[in-house]
Amino acid sequence: MIRVGILGATGYTALELMKILLRHAEVEIAILTSRQEDNPHVAMVHPQLAGRLDLHLEKLDANSVATNVDCVFCCLPHAASAAVVRTFVDAGVRVVDFSADYRLDDAETYSEWYGGKHPDPERVGHVVYGLPEFFGESIPDAQLVANPGCFPTSAVLAVAPLLKLDLIESEGIIFDSKTGVSGAGRTPKLTTHYPECNESLAAYNVGMHRHTPEIDQILRRIVGREFEVVFTPHLVPMDRGILTTSYTNPKKEATEQELLSALREFYAEMPFVRVVDHLPATKDTNDTNFCDITIRAVRGRIIVISCIDNLIKGASGAAVQNFNLMFGFPETTAL
Amino acid sequence: MIRVGILGATGYTALELMKILLRHAEVEIAILTSRQEDNPHVAMVHPQLAGRLDLHLEKLDANSVATNVDCVFCCLPHAASAAVVRTFVDAGVRVVDFSADYRLDDAETYSEWYGGKHPDPERVGHVVYGLPEFFGESIPDAQLVANPGCFPTSAVLAVAPLLKLDLIESEGIIFDSKTGVSGAGRTPKLTTHYPECNESLAAYNVGMHRHTPEIDQILRRIVGREFEVVFTPHLVPMDRGILTTSYTNPKKEATEQELLSALREFYAEMPFVRVVDHLPATKDTNDTNFCDITIRAVRGRIIVISCIDNLIKGASGAAVQNFNLMFGFPETTAL
Amino acid sequence: MIRVGILGATGYTALELMKILLRHAEVEIAILTSRQEDNPHVAMVHPQLAGRLDLHLEKLDANSVATNVDCVFCCLPHAASAAVVRTFVDAGVRVVDFSADYRLDDAETYSEWYGGKHPDPERVGHVVYGLPEFFGESIPDAQLVANPGCFPTSAVLAVAPLLKLDLIESEGIIFDSKTGVSGAGRTPKLTTHYPECNESLAAYNVGMHRHTPEIDQILRRIVGREFEVVFTPHLVPMDRGILTTSYTNPKKEATEQELLSALREFYAEMPFVRVVDHLPATKDTNDTNFCDITIRAVRGRIIVISCIDNLIKGASGAAVQNFNLMFGFPETTAL
Amino acid sequence: MIRVGILGATGYTALELMKILLRHAEVEIAILTSRQEDNPHVAMVHPQLAGRLDLHLEKLDANSVATNVDCVFCCLPHAASAAVVRTFVDAGVRVVDFSADYRLDDAETYSEWYGGKHPDPERVGHVVYGLPEFFGESIPDAQLVANPGCFPTSAVLAVAPLLKLDLIESEGIIFDSKTGVSGAGRTPKLTTHYPECNESLAAYNVGMHRHTPEIDQILRRIVGREFEVVFTPHLVPMDRGILTTSYTNPKKEATEQELLSALREFYAEMPFVRVVDHLPATKDTNDTNFCDITIRAVRGRIIVISCIDNLIKGASGAAVQNFNLMFGFPETTAL
Repeated sequence: MIRVGILGATGYTALELMKILLRHAEVEIAILTSRQEDNPHVAMVHPQLAGRLDLHLEKLDANSVATNVDCVFCCLPHAASAAVVRTFVDAGVRVVDFSADYRLDDAETYSEWYGGKHPDPERVGHVVYGLPEFFGESIPDAQLVANPGCFPTSAVLAVAPLLKLDLIESEGIIFDSKTGVSGAGRTPKLTTHYPECNESLAAYNVGMHRHTPEIDQILRRIVGREFEVVFTPHLVPMDRGILTTSYTNPKKEATEQELLSALREFYAEMPFVRVVDHLPATKDTNDTNFCDITIRAVRGRIIVISCIDNLIKGASGAAVQNFNLMFGFPETTAL
Repeated sequence: MIRVGILGATGYTALELMKILLRHAEVEIAILTSRQEDNPHVAMVHPQLAGRLDLHLEKLDANSVATNVDCVFCCLPHAASAAVVRTFVDAGVRVVDFSADYRLDDAETYSEWYGGKHPDPERVGHVVYGLPEFFGESIPDAQLVANPGCFPTSAVLAVAPLLKLDLIESEGIIFDSKTGVSGAGRTPKLTTHYPECNESLAAYNVGMHRHTPEIDQILRRIVGREFEVVFTPHLVPMDRGILTTSYTNPKKEATEQELLSALREFYAEMPFVRVVDHLPATKDTNDTNFCDITIRAVRGRIIVISCIDNLIKGASGAAVQNFNLMFGFPETTAL
Repeated sequence: MIRVGILGATGYTALELMKILLRHAEVEIAILTSRQEDNPHVAMVHPQLAGRLDLHLEKLDANSVATNVDCVFCCLPHAASAAVVRTFVDAGVRVVDFSADYRLDDAETYSEWYGGKHPDPERVGHVVYGLPEFFGESIPDAQLVANPGCFPTSAVLAVAPLLKLDLIESEGIIFDSKTGVSGAGRTPKLTTHYPECNESLAAYNVGMHRHTPEIDQILRRIVGREFEVVFTPHLVPMDRGILTTSYTNPKKEATEQELLSALREFYAEMPFVRVVDHLPATKDTNDTNFCDITIRAVRGRIIVISCIDNLIKGASGAAVQNFNLMFGFPETTAL
Repeated sequence: MIRVGILGATGYTALELMKILLRHAEVEIAILTSRQEDNPHVAMVHPQLAGRLDLHLEKLDANSVATNVDCVFCCLPHAASAAVVRTFVDAGVRVVDFSADYRLDDAETYSEWYGGKHPDPERVGHVVYGLPEFFGESIPDAQLVANPGCFPTSAVLAVAPLLKLDLIESEGIIFDSKTGVSGAGRTPKLTTHYPECNESLAAYNVGMHRHTPEIDQILRRIVGREFEVVFTPHLVPMDRGILTTSYTNPKKEATEQELLSALREFYAEMPFVRVVDHLPATKDTNDTNFCDITIRAVRGRIIVISCIDNLIKGASGAAVQNFNLMFGFPETTAL
């Protein structure tokens, strides 16, 4: 039985994480933390968990938590995350970090896109990126895993195999992504106020979204070439789900069927990627850890369409997938 | 041309009001006020109005506004509203007040349900209640009109005629109401955060909603008997619309058809109430000033089902209907 | 390992059932049937199940299925269901029937509300009603279980304990229910066409909904008195979830807290009913087998508010709960 | 007073058209037609119109209608439309045709994309395309106007000025479009069944959507060069609204501000295009005839984002805009 702690347990990713871990026979959720006043019972914050998990949210005392758990899932915001993750790592606790703090190659790029100085700059660039489909071999031995961003997961899973197989060009890739509102987190804002975003669709952070350098750099790690992708996120009136429409240029002549076959073969042994013939809908992957992908060749372009549940394969499901690999459980346990 | 001012122009009711008034050939929107810093252009707050209304939101200076307009629509919160309405009324400006400040019979009930001391207690109980279907004769001469609450409008229009006609009992009336989220206003809160209220339905403020005494008292004014209604509001994942299911007890024997006929006759000359045979949907009245009503006799109960657009017949449409009556325009102008 | 068949596997309840059973370590889904032409793979009908269940939907041959399975879940429409259920029961296969065919007391009431002659009239009235919270003792030995309707589940769980404890009157109970659209099934109709029911709310089948006699009769079985309830369903723009607001009259003097305590004690040993202090939202129970209930005393009425996921506790979760009891597994297995 | 007929009055575009025309002081809606049996009152089909329009839907007899009206709005499906439009045109009645029948350059392309032989092939290619922003000079004298498709409107308004001004390349344009569900019409289908498309997003008809050749050809008419665009539509869980994200390549060096200024100047005199600095949301244009457009320069690409209400500027609003120009009314009347 692995004892785990969840840091920052009030958010949506933490809720999904707890729901998954409650199904995991080898896990005991030992500690939940939050900055909430007066240590509320978890069911006061997440009524979904009433009668299922009997813990209070505690103020985070990293040293004390570290002595009590084998693993922490850190759901804190960027910067806040690295500030405590280092304590756990130094104390020998294994960590899956949901924040962006350890995903990028270097602290300079981090500062440029996230602002501020990185709290743990030495470690940046040396942390395993927790996308098991591409970095699965490094995960079992990792003490710290940087859990991928939701958009990068949908984008990288779509195009990285085609790039590795030299079927598409590295230049000129456009990711047009659409996400449900839970991706914006649980803090009320005008943009996610129901009457504002319901029955409406808009692009946001065009050219400035922080997942842009993450996509660039992870593709480079996988493919070994430089990338400068165009990434445009849109907010869609639905709770969850990301669909990314990737526009790419072919490098070799290949039919749609050949491309689909190549992709299917690439992912043949990977349990959570489904290469499908039909055009997938986000609902097909909601509440699952799957990424569904298909390909269309249109007027000289290769269009790759991928979808995931942003809270599961785009966050908490991926985290448990990483956890399973780290602790030697079957990759699909509880997923 | 009537010059109007809109106080508190950042909210949803103010937006709908402006959209209606822009279609009103005899109205000039002269002044908009808000507490927003730096006097933003109205189109910065409401992008819908770009290119349609070229005004900035100004800090409210009641005396200065009063010299510039013939009428103000006051969309301020309760208490804040009465505090300025009195200035306008004293200055001879006509006022349609969207707040609850002048709807109740007395300042004591106001304090009990809304908290705090009423800012203009002498006037409370002497103000015309702006439900033209029942108080239409007093509106043309009113200097101040208390625009009705959205739930009371849907409830009172449903049962008041049957009560006046002695067809149902005064005791034991239950209003089970369902409302879209815009009724909660434009300030972001956790309960109206998209991922919280989307794909969810809940009752709220059961037994404590402030529209309860308003329904009691308005029914008493109309029917001349005491009321103590049960009113249960529910939040529905949609932008707008209220549907109220009223459970009442028959006083006389009457068939469903006879009840419908009685209701149809009662509202025959009133342009904004449609008595329908089918079960109405809120969408039938969305973006209109109509209230659709039907009746079903079920196992000894008389069930009255009514729906309105909470922002139009439940707020801004009713306000313009009142305005038309106050200034001698045809009741349906711009509606 | 129990081999199960699912009859009528194209609908939403069947999809949820398969998702639950795939988590059940002691179940093998052996056969799926449907009336679809050309035996499609289940993933063609339910893309959610791609890579998770490798079966084709077959035309139903009851005798052949009966020799191959230990249990069938019958998701066929009423009348069609009883016509095949009798074959399975006679062949010694255990059955959980999702239809209304075996829920009522007698074939006459069935004909009155559902039309047509009942295909298996002798059995009607002698079948265990699969609401474990009240009929749990009869389920382990039942060969055939009538799985409850979604609305009756939300209504009966709310008021039956209070009735049994003599805390509320049997007369004058009103159930005002609100349901998500999945309750209407998977066959496209104008009323469930997205642009018709989205952003809209309406009552439907007022006074005529077929769950009315089911509620009457099940309450009578539990309480031993006659019931004639008023039940008003409403269609809400959300996928899933039922919230029922029950208006009842107190029989004894009792505070809100006393009523909550009585209810809490009643359900203390039952794993899927959560008596809560807050006003529950359907989202709290979505994707779970829980029923959340609270009570409010308002102006002399006792209002009970209950919510469930109509596809889980209102259908497929309850079915697996029954299955667990029938086959001796812990009641909560896979739920 | 212009007498108009509306052919095919049961659909969503017809409903919006009637709502607009009821505000048009110079229009009398004289005749509505449909294939519905038994000539229902329009309020039976569109409860929104109860008490506002007192007409029954009649079977279409083109010759008889032609003698009774000055203008018809034809909301029939493609092919069915041209079959009757020719009768009206030959009879001297002016026509705004909502179908695709007269939008393309030639009957061969029509057959290729729409199937079947065109019913009125001689006229194809000689009909005014009703996008007043580009073909406004030809509309006043047109007897027949082909009302534009919803996606082409959002795409052409976004990029045509930049193409005319030689600011972007003709090659490599990608239109990633997202539309609300009303665009799929009023006939129930599984893909538009609420529980299927709610809380879900998917691409559809990728590489095969019939608006593709329309965009190609209209851009050619405007710019004088050949186009072969990539167009990918997506279905979004909302009633109405289209947002098109256009990815283009710059032809000249120009800053974002210069591009915005060029666009603003181009549309300066056109009442229904708003060039905005912020990222527009579909909700900003819902229920209006506006198209909101902005530009972002990202990593060497020019991204143009445009949105419209698919039922208004994408259909019925544009039709009335055309009607106003054809009959000499101010372009914005009733809009």
